[in-house]
Amino acid sequence: MARSASANARKNKNSGSAASTSVSDSSAARDLEPLFAPQSIAVVGASRRGGTAGSEILRNLIQGSYAGVIYPVNPKTKSIMGIRCVPSISAIDDHVDLAVLIIPAPAVEKVVQEAADKGTKHFVVISAGFKEIGGDGVERENRLKAIARERGLSILGPNCLGLINTAPDVLMNAAFGGRMPVAGCMGLISQSGALAAALLDYANGRGIGFSRFVSFGNKADINEVDLLRSLAADPATKVILMYVEDLSSGQTFVETAHAITHGRNPKPILAIKTGRTQEGAAAAASHTGSLAGSDEVYDAIFSQAGVIRVESVEELFDYAEVFAEPTLPAGRRTAIVTNAGGPGIMATDACIRYGLKLARFHDYTIKSLKFQMPPTGSLKNPVDVIGDARHDRYRSALDAVSSDEDVDQILVLVTPQAMTNSKEIGEVVSESQHYCDKPIVACMMGESDVQPGVVVLKANGVPTYQFPENAMRSLAAKARFAEWIRSPIAEYRRFEMDRETVDRLFDEELAAGRSQLVEVRALNVLQACGFPIVPYKLAQSADEAAAAAAQMGYPVVLKIAGPKILHKTDVGGVKLNLRDEGAVREAFDTMVASVREKLGADIEIWGVLVQKMLQPGKEIILGMTRDARFGPLLMFGLGGIYTEALRDVSFRLAPIRENVAGEMIRSIRSHRLLEGVRGEPPSDQPAIGECLMRLSQLVTDHPRIKELDINPLIVYPQGSGAMVADARIILSEG
Amino acid sequence: MARSASANARKNKNSGSAASTSVSDSSAARDLEPLFAPQSIAVVGASRRGGTAGSEILRNLIQGSYAGVIYPVNPKTKSIMGIRCVPSISAIDDHVDLAVLIIPAPAVEKVVQEAADKGTKHFVVISAGFKEIGGDGVERENRLKAIARERGLSILGPNCLGLINTAPDVLMNAAFGGRMPVAGCMGLISQSGALAAALLDYANGRGIGFSRFVSFGNKADINEVDLLRSLAADPATKVILMYVEDLSSGQTFVETAHAITHGRNPKPILAIKTGRTQEGAAAAASHTGSLAGSDEVYDAIFSQAGVIRVESVEELFDYAEVFAEPTLPAGRRTAIVTNAGGPGIMATDACIRYGLKLARFHDYTIKSLKFQMPPTGSLKNPVDVIGDARHDRYRSALDAVSSDEDVDQILVLVTPQAMTNSKEIGEVVSESQHYCDKPIVACMMGESDVQPGVVVLKANGVPTYQFPENAMRSLAAKARFAEWIRSPIAEYRRFEMDRETVDRLFDEELAAGRSQLVEVRALNVLQACGFPIVPYKLAQSADEAAAAAAQMGYPVVLKIAGPKILHKTDVGGVKLNLRDEGAVREAFDTMVASVREKLGADIEIWGVLVQKMLQPGKEIILGMTRDARFGPLLMFGLGGIYTEALRDVSFRLAPIRENVAGEMIRSIRSHRLLEGVRGEPPSDQPAIGECLMRLSQLVTDHPRIKELDINPLIVYPQGSGAMVADARIILSEG
Repeated sequence: MARSASANARKNKNSGSAASTSVSDSSAARDLEPLFAPQSIAVVGASRRGGTAGSEILRNLIQGSYAGVIYPVNPKTKSIMGIRCVPSISAIDDHVDLAVLIIPAPAVEKVVQEAADKGTKHFVVISAGFKEIGGDGVERENRLKAIARERGLSILGPNCLGLINTAPDVLMNAAFGGRMPVAGCMGLISQSGALAAALLDYANGRGIGFSRFVSFGNKADINEVDLLRSLAADPATKVILMYVEDLSSGQTFVETAHAITHGRNPKPILAIKTGRTQEGAAAAASHTGSLAGSDEVYDAIFSQAGVIRVESVEELFDYAEVFAEPTLPAGRRTAIVTNAGGPGIMATDACIRYGLKLARFHDYTIKSLKFQMPPTGSLKNPVDVIGDARHDRYRSALDAVSSDEDVDQILVLVTPQAMTNSKEIGEVVSESQHYCDKPIVACMMGESDVQPGVVVLKANGVPTYQFPENAMRSLAAKARFAEWIRSPIAEYRRFEMDRETVDRLFDEELAAGRSQLVEVRALNVLQACGFPIVPYKLAQSADEAAAAAAQMGYPVVLKIAGPKILHKTDVGGVKLNLRDEGAVREAFDTMVASVREKLGADIEIWGVLVQKMLQPGKEIILGMTRDARFGPLLMFGLGGIYTEALRDVSFRLAPIRENVAGEMIRSIRSHRLLEGVRGEPPSDQPAIGECLMRLSQLVTDHPRIKELDINPLIVYPQGSGAMVADARIILSEG
Repeated sequence: MARSASANARKNKNSGSAASTSVSDSSAARDLEPLFAPQSIAVVGASRRGGTAGSEILRNLIQGSYAGVIYPVNPKTKSIMGIRCVPSISAIDDHVDLAVLIIPAPAVEKVVQEAADKGTKHFVVISAGFKEIGGDGVERENRLKAIARERGLSILGPNCLGLINTAPDVLMNAAFGGRMPVAGCMGLISQSGALAAALLDYANGRGIGFSRFVSFGNKADINEVDLLRSLAADPATKVILMYVEDLSSGQTFVETAHAITHGRNPKPILAIKTGRTQEGAAAAASHTGSLAGSDEVYDAIFSQAGVIRVESVEELFDYAEVFAEPTLPAGRRTAIVTNAGGPGIMATDACIRYGLKLARFHDYTIKSLKFQMPPTGSLKNPVDVIGDARHDRYRSALDAVSSDEDVDQILVLVTPQAMTNSKEIGEVVSESQHYCDKPIVACMMGESDVQPGVVVLKANGVPTYQFPENAMRSLAAKARFAEWIRSPIAEYRRFEMDRETVDRLFDEELAAGRSQLVEVRALNVLQACGFPIVPYKLAQSADEAAAAAAQMGYPVVLKIAGPKILHKTDVGGVKLNLRDEGAVREAFDTMVASVREKLGADIEIWGVLVQKMLQPGKEIILGMTRDARFGPLLMFGLGGIYTEALRDVSFRLAPIRENVAGEMIRSIRSHRLLEGVRGEPPSDQPAIGECLMRLSQLVTDHPRIKELDINPLIVYPQGSGAMVADARIILSEG
């Protein structure tokens, strides 16, 4: 099964070599099928004592009608729940596909070794007492990890609730704390066990069914990427739900999830990621580093992966309902059919708020509605079938709007009024959904009065909501997903870059003990990588400076350059707008004198950087900071106050595909300043995009770069390019 | 009852004369008590035919155990539901306090007259067929309005569902379509009938009870302000819920709602206002006019009135639950007690997202928790009592954190786990709430597994939620409301202004047929109103210009001034940064020549405006546009791209209190640019505030001003004031 996921990835012709070479993917696809569909299970630590995990898991396996053989392992009792016990796993006279361990943490290691000796490859370690308790537990978990690696085992947990597979030929409930869910198309993986139990209970209340359910706890071995691959390959799973508190990797997750959400057989992934509050990166040396909070990293990862991040459990299940029904909309044009004006307005507001469009009906639709609706009804969108509407009027309205070619999806609103028979209306909506190739969702407003209709709709698989806002938000999520899977997969562009020169420059700087590169060195690096750089020359004398200026043309800028001179302005080391030879010569001499006076006569000076004075343009900042876990994180923003005071920046993990560069540029709040306002021409966004892709390649190819700021990149009107004016690079030491 | 609401308003010492004089309050407080608690009701149009409104309302009155006398009026039948009918309202041999009309629209007028002749003062017109159908219906409604005004009647509706009063000595359900709600502390008024019915059904499902319920339909006579006053005076109503599609007035609503939410006996008002989508004000002549969409007006109104605007029905009831429990928090510091880590993190995220703070416990709290919690529990906030917690451990944790003086409110989270007995935990939380003087809310995660706990909590009036996000958002709303009612009511400051001069200037301009004032006239007006104006003089000759410049000091700016010259720059009519007399003289002559060349030799020129060149500062835009319904709407924003491209502006209705000016300034997204970034000093916000208040007084005193832009107002560092650099004023014609 994991095989077909990787096949998917291979078929994806655009996931080119740039990505593969840059991704250090240690977790190759693995076969977890025996974990999900074992022929035999040993329940080590099965217990007669009710209320314990060891008793519950055994009972759940039995009551869930597990299709294989169960071997309770307990040396202290002869049988549990009527099943003969064995004293130890080695005493089982059969191959054991899966061992579930519910025993004290210190005993886990030995039992795993014993089972592995017997040939068992798959384990679920329910036991707590590992990493989560700190101290001893951490070492215990590390040993378990090592065993898994050395012996090629797959271990789920420790500190988890277990797993469930509702496939009719498996029917395995090897979990405790949660009820056996009804079978359905949702695959759920959760890092929190307690939350997982609550999720099963919620889902049950909403009539949502599951294919597979996995609580993966401390993920000592099997992590969310392994489980995503496995759910992607499971034909019963149509929608993947995940709750995570952290991700084990960045780029591997992005590549895996991207292949799942945008492959040949795309499945939506809905994720709750908690811990949104900012974690301090305040000590970072670059702008980029200080702006990249942990949550921005996760937003970037989910966005690149096509994963739909939700904010709450309610949103998770709202979306789950709409995605469980497989019809995808062709666009954002939404029709509303309602039996009351007020809720129709609420739905319209929500339609706009969540980025959908109110459909404009064709004349033939209006004509058809006019023929069928009462004279006081509204024939425009939202269609008001009026408070006394019965199911027949809803049917006519649905027939009319669903045949309109400018309608992509439909929300049916029902309020309980005197003549309303919600059950009959529910039947009509269910029929319409059956025949219609556009998504239809229902909003039954109220509680008990509309209950008969809700029951019918749920039974027929029509996504059904209590409130118009939730219904519309869910439709909007589906419309965005439909756009995502239809969007072409862009390339990872590969640029000619002089890697050797860059490496040599880094070697030299590090050898000289300088991890922070001064401007001229940073420009050397960027030039070697083909960035558009303002013409510059390092001059050793006033003569050289004047010659350089004459060659590049006036006006020019002079900046002091020396290995220790980081704050040039403070020491009189910058002179702008020099318009002739005399000015250049004078500036050179004054500058060198001023720097020596301020920093000491023996300060090392490499020379004076002569740069062509740039035409004014819009100031942009591009940057990169290397996240300890996720690798290089790219940043884009407008310069100056937009970045520093307003924090209006966007992030993505490198490497980025070409479309992602455009997304980064478009997703800042102030983006319209680049589109041209107040009569200005639009800025050259493709030029910025190319710099972002070059930056992506540079930092991916050179892991020694720890942080990098290009600040400012001056961008000119469309077609006139962009120019790097200043940059800084910080290398990892050692 | 309306008496005590107005008494409230009178007691409010700060609602000073400026406000009262400026508010044209035609709807004086009126006594609606006989409408809500009539001794006798005539049901005109009572019907034997089931399923009709005329049958339902009668049945609801009877089944609701109405405490007064019911007179069904129907000429065609002798009795309905066992009650003797009368053929007409005049045939009733008793005083009729309230007449409920469920008859065809054309018959309403006559019956109202007939009842009024008999002495009936209060009416509920259920009948549809008025304004909402257009044409005839509009005239019919206007006649009904006129009758109400002439004869001093109070009419609810038409086109409404009716009203309900659950007071035990009234028990009146004079509504159709909705069930009789359980008695409780919510007062609900709704412009949409169908939504109201759905709301009653939702509330019933959540166990929320009502004091009064009113569907007010077309509000021909009684509007939302009348009903708010009446609910404010009703002792049984503790929380007011309202659904509106529009408001009948602006300033009257603000004053009334402000007195209710911030008076001596404050009651929260929770409002759903639909129709958020932008209505076109695109044709407006000023910046302010073109930026003020209808929804911004409503946001401004609700904000000034202390009304809590909610986005959805779900949010409405979430908040209703938390406000039904009267304890107000002292601050934003929130403690979380949970039996699972993941949901604890979700609650923490929501705490931060909704603007609350995670409480930091005192040492004594940590000690107390340490003594009582298991070793693996978390003693910091969120307190993790661990998955196997029973009610006793929840009690210990609640005792500890509720005694911590740095905790203002508590969220108790329960996930269903093996050892969880939600009923017992529900009892413990209910007890804690009983003894504790801090708000406590519960989140029971899941559906059926936690149901026993939910039942106990609801029965004890503990606000209870399914999801941590909803619980936290509701706590945050209550904390904000607590801050609102504790905030001092600021004054309406009154400035010395030369009203006569302003009126004379307007008279002259209008007499000359100029509704759009050119810069020099606008500056004349603002100067008469005490705004800080850059020194200026209108010069008729190069000599006068040179003399003026010498007097005010160089550098100066010259701008052409003439009654028809609106776009000065386009015709060479602006010269900046003139540094000596020669430059001024030359500029004067060139300018006049250029203008005459471009606009014709006979173009009227008043002269040339000589202005002192302003020191650079931050550019601000202040403005006003007069909303057809709500009156003068003030705008504040940063100048240039912030206003034009980023639409980062704030609005409030004039007149504004002093604190509101500060709020306007603080509520733009880019506010921190005024706080001083990148080493700049903070800007003089009090100076901007004073200009806003002067603007408020100017536009309130002079209703002839239709639109006004001060653009830019240059603001200097704290203590250095602000200066009006340019302005335009547009007057109403005729």
